[in-house]
Amino acid sequence: MSTSYDLIVVGSGPGGYVAAIRASQLGLKVGVVEKESLGGICLNWGCIPTKALLKSAQVFEYTQHAADYGINISGEVTADMDAMVKRSRNVAGGMSKGIQFLFKKNKIDTIMGYGKLTAKKQVEVTAEDGKVTLYDAKHIILATGGRAKQLPNLPIDNEKIIGYRKAMVLDKKPKSMVIVGSGAIGVEFAYFYNAIGVEVTVVEFLPNIVPNEDVDVSKQLEKSFKKSGINVMTKAAVQSVDTSGKGCKVSIKTEKGMEEIACDIVLSAVGVETNLENIGLEDIGIATDRGKVIVDDYYKTNIPGVYAIGDIVKGPALAHVASAEGIICVEKIAGHSPEPLNYENIPGCTYCSPEIASVGMTEKKAKEAGYEIKVGKFPFSASGKASAGGAKDGFIKVIFDAKYGEWLGAHMIGANVTEMIAEVVVARNLETTGHEIIKSVHPHPTMSEAVMEAAAAAYDEVIHI
Amino acid sequence: MSTSYDLIVVGSGPGGYVAAIRASQLGLKVGVVEKESLGGICLNWGCIPTKALLKSAQVFEYTQHAADYGINISGEVTADMDAMVKRSRNVAGGMSKGIQFLFKKNKIDTIMGYGKLTAKKQVEVTAEDGKVTLYDAKHIILATGGRAKQLPNLPIDNEKIIGYRKAMVLDKKPKSMVIVGSGAIGVEFAYFYNAIGVEVTVVEFLPNIVPNEDVDVSKQLEKSFKKSGINVMTKAAVQSVDTSGKGCKVSIKTEKGMEEIACDIVLSAVGVETNLENIGLEDIGIATDRGKVIVDDYYKTNIPGVYAIGDIVKGPALAHVASAEGIICVEKIAGHSPEPLNYENIPGCTYCSPEIASVGMTEKKAKEAGYEIKVGKFPFSASGKASAGGAKDGFIKVIFDAKYGEWLGAHMIGANVTEMIAEVVVARNLETTGHEIIKSVHPHPTMSEAVMEAAAAAYDEVIHI
Repeated sequence: MSTSYDLIVVGSGPGGYVAAIRASQLGLKVGVVEKESLGGICLNWGCIPTKALLKSAQVFEYTQHAADYGINISGEVTADMDAMVKRSRNVAGGMSKGIQFLFKKNKIDTIMGYGKLTAKKQVEVTAEDGKVTLYDAKHIILATGGRAKQLPNLPIDNEKIIGYRKAMVLDKKPKSMVIVGSGAIGVEFAYFYNAIGVEVTVVEFLPNIVPNEDVDVSKQLEKSFKKSGINVMTKAAVQSVDTSGKGCKVSIKTEKGMEEIACDIVLSAVGVETNLENIGLEDIGIATDRGKVIVDDYYKTNIPGVYAIGDIVKGPALAHVASAEGIICVEKIAGHSPEPLNYENIPGCTYCSPEIASVGMTEKKAKEAGYEIKVGKFPFSASGKASAGGAKDGFIKVIFDAKYGEWLGAHMIGANVTEMIAEVVVARNLETTGHEIIKSVHPHPTMSEAVMEAAAAAYDEVIHI
Repeated sequence: MSTSYDLIVVGSGPGGYVAAIRASQLGLKVGVVEKESLGGICLNWGCIPTKALLKSAQVFEYTQHAADYGINISGEVTADMDAMVKRSRNVAGGMSKGIQFLFKKNKIDTIMGYGKLTAKKQVEVTAEDGKVTLYDAKHIILATGGRAKQLPNLPIDNEKIIGYRKAMVLDKKPKSMVIVGSGAIGVEFAYFYNAIGVEVTVVEFLPNIVPNEDVDVSKQLEKSFKKSGINVMTKAAVQSVDTSGKGCKVSIKTEKGMEEIACDIVLSAVGVETNLENIGLEDIGIATDRGKVIVDDYYKTNIPGVYAIGDIVKGPALAHVASAEGIICVEKIAGHSPEPLNYENIPGCTYCSPEIASVGMTEKKAKEAGYEIKVGKFPFSASGKASAGGAKDGFIKVIFDAKYGEWLGAHMIGANVTEMIAEVVVARNLETTGHEIIKSVHPHPTMSEAVMEAAAAAYDEVIHI
């Protein structure tokens, strides 16, 4: 038996499920193949459950500093790891059920099992019980996503050396943790575990933590992290982990020589790699390059009718990128004329505390690209709302092209900045200049005024510094 | 003796002090007359200290719901009114000192005393000790702001019947409070006092609370307020308050007849009126209309060299409006060519919980103006970030002109929406259409995605509902 679809999507993460819903809106008959849980890593083991944990950490921190806000707590406050994890799993579960609901509403078939392309351009789905079913589709979108990268000297055993999945469901709070890697995943867990009372060390190979950010942001985060008690080691590489004893002994090569740190748990957060194995790429002859499927501006692979989106194609491995790619891909399939995605205008957010949000070029990259630039920076220490909110750490830094006023980049670190970067994305999409931002009346008192003030600083018109 | 300035600003609120700093940047010799505290009401008795109190209330609420986030508190949690007020006063004091610093840095003279125009177009300043000094200035900006309006049946005695100033420095937490008026000030205090355990009743004359907002927002706030235990009375008018006994007996006329509510304190929050008395308007012949100074697009009054900005001119009485007016006014004085302020694109924010932010036309007003409209609404209950953050109350509603795609209005209620409205202001300033918002990649997971989704909903392209 073979069921026929206009579109089959392999993988139901934020690339796949969004593509499926948009395709259904556009009149296509859609099936989605998922091997584990609807919503993929993002909903089940990524963006959403981590944000739930981070919220618990934030609330816990408020209880620790309650007196600063005029609140007296007479007894003891404890972070209940079990309860935090349970809440996080419930939030993720609820979101995954939400996708079920959306699929039903949009008449999208969910096909549970492991999906693979066949040489005849069918989708072969192997269910958990081993049953194999073949499906025909006019169009197939591969959206199989990624997984934690493993380094040979950091073999994940899910007991003492863990990856991000285990890190969000530990059954008890460890006493100490070494986190290897300081990208978004690394620093979010560093913040979470430090906030709830774990001794945390972050080990970063490069000279700065969050190394993809503007260096001023990296320096600010390092300062804030150190102030909150996190041990930050940069230009440092974990050579080996000895797990033979009670805990772990982590051997770290630093500029000053070898150091050994003892801890309960090592979290490997050294990046993600794509899920390209055993999905039939070779059988059908789909071209790849360094672990990514090669696609055109509308996510067509070299094989007609087969498309790829999300982490498995070039561009940043981010949920919102995958969703945008999915929408563009199916709009094109449905005969619309969407604009290709502008990869220069993709925001990135990191939800540690202080939060980080950025879009466009760093100062270094803008200079390397040969731009003459105007840079403006506004510290939250000069913001009334930040003072009132007890959130004076951080700043907003903006970079404009001196010649034509193009907004080249924005880099934010501070409370709630992840909610403030959309303004920049939209403004850049609409080809703003600095003065149009300065002359847009931002409400007072908000942290968002700092965007306007940073732009004003770039043009020597800043008021509050 | 008479000192001569290029510019004297009367009043150092967010209109006056910002005008002074910008004028100094543009090379003018500036003096600012202030009768009380630098920064005016906004910094000292408005925007800033209330936000500090509201932050205390938010943190207190987190302690009350800590278990929801996996946090156990064994003892008792108490809201220390004294400490909250002290923190709030410290924040305000710090901001006011900040203005002192900025004035010094910008070589602006602070002239303490009560400022008044003379018939000869000088500024006469009466110091606290009664000493009178005359100052000459080429240009004079009046920025004297506003004060709480008093109703005859609600005479403020600062004991039992209080205004907003007293409401932010009460020396002990009352047991119960009736708040008359449900504009921004009324509902912010309603949230604050209810959150820290006071029995609160809000009395609004009109059919909906926050009556200037889109009716959907009003209804949502009423729902959220009632859920949190606030007694909301609409179409209700306070007729009289009997303060002769121990507390207050408030007589309220409702649709069902008269009701009497007993309470400790009545807060009158029935609006503001302008400070136009005894500042010499009549002596010099400055034209006014219904309590506002008449000005042109660049804030010139009918008397050459005299300008007025802020609450005392037409337009919404908001800090960010006053600041924008001040900047435009002095840029024009300095010979620049600023664009007149677009009063159609002024955001308004209310910092109760859930927060409210809006800009542009309500649905009702857009229809009344004859627009054919497309309306999109996205509830935070469908947002992953809102679920993770425990903040599912509220929504974003957007209104586009069906014909040309102009963004006519946006109405938000929910956590952190006051940080999200700037995107709309900027986008409207840049003459966006709905599709440009839909195609701007908003970061995941954020509450700001709801802006994109609401726009998509208006065009039947929404993914997550």
